[in-house]
Amino acid sequence: MDAYSSKITKLVSELSSLPGIGAKSAQRLAFHILNMPPEQVKKLTDTIMDARTTVHYCKECWNLTDSELCPICADPRRDKTTIMVVETPRDLAAYEKTGKYKGVYHVLHGAISPMLGIGPSDIRLKELMTRLQGDVHEVIVATNFTLEGETTATYIGKLVKPTGIRVTRIASGVPVGGDLEYTDEVTLMRAVEGRVDL
Amino acid sequence: MDAYSSKITKLVSELSSLPGIGAKSAQRLAFHILNMPPEQVKKLTDTIMDARTTVHYCKECWNLTDSELCPICADPRRDKTTIMVVETPRDLAAYEKTGKYKGVYHVLHGAISPMLGIGPSDIRLKELMTRLQGDVHEVIVATNFTLEGETTATYIGKLVKPTGIRVTRIASGVPVGGDLEYTDEVTLMRAVEGRVDL
Repeated sequence: MDAYSSKITKLVSELSSLPGIGAKSAQRLAFHILNMPPEQVKKLTDTIMDARTTVHYCKECWNLTDSELCPICADPRRDKTTIMVVETPRDLAAYEKTGKYKGVYHVLHGAISPMLGIGPSDIRLKELMTRLQGDVHEVIVATNFTLEGETTATYIGKLVKPTGIRVTRIASGVPVGGDLEYTDEVTLMRAVEGRVDL
Repeated sequence: MDAYSSKITKLVSELSSLPGIGAKSAQRLAFHILNMPPEQVKKLTDTIMDARTTVHYCKECWNLTDSELCPICADPRRDKTTIMVVETPRDLAAYEKTGKYKGVYHVLHGAISPMLGIGPSDIRLKELMTRLQGDVHEVIVATNFTLEGETTATYIGKLVKPTGIRVTRIASGVPVGGDLEYTDEVTLMRAVEGRVDL
């Protein structure tokens, strides 16, 4: 990048430090930004700073929000007695997109991973247990079907059962539109184990 | 994105307006930014604003720079009598990466395209002709091998020839490592036409 001035090099390196942005995309983005009308660039940087400054965690479910409560917890139509536990706000967003889930969420911000040294106290488990002291009928564990997600699910199961509150795990199986021929064995076994009556 | 607050939605939409950033990557970037330390976010936005504010065109070759002259034009070791004409600063960067070219450049910022209504006066051709009044021995046309790039090359050839300055076009042919079997016919014909003695 010696062909350019240091400011451009700095911009490219700053952009390429973002996830999913390689050297080529960073260069492309940099040139795009340098060609954008200055007021549009200001709008972009202001939006970034504004979001970073004002967005924090929902005091109820730990989703991201710029109010005290996130839009879901603030919505009186949502069923507060059903809590779906997810690892990240992105997982929450994925479930929200279905438009079918009417309960609320609890965002753990991670999963238990002995390998990475992430223990139960490093994720929002204590906060989940505090919420269960209210009127809660069911905890649906929707952590990922990875080693970490499964470990976390098992751990939550053990924590919640003694309280008498129902604790469930979302189903694992062959995805809709999925072809059995191309589905891995573990998923196929899961699908059999989780079979339901027709 | 109703699951989030308006600030996050705004950030995602602002990011997805950038080239090569789709809805998914924008969401991923947004969450990354919201998790970055505030001072790092400030560094990112400052770098963007600073680059946009201070970067302008080199008064000699129209490359991007934050000084009066770009690093290439300012380098006394570069041969100012040879000018390579490119369409964009990215093309210039591609040639600079070879590390072999010792001349200087001229960035047109586009190519002639009757289809898009871009005429000779819309790109930096007049500025190129002004430079030719100095001590220039050769103009190497390195516009792309597209309809627009070829049209521009032909046009530059016609402009420069009357001045008596040598005007050349970079070679078109089978790329290094390229397999003839998978090379298109136009390129194969070009490669024959541009054959050199062994």
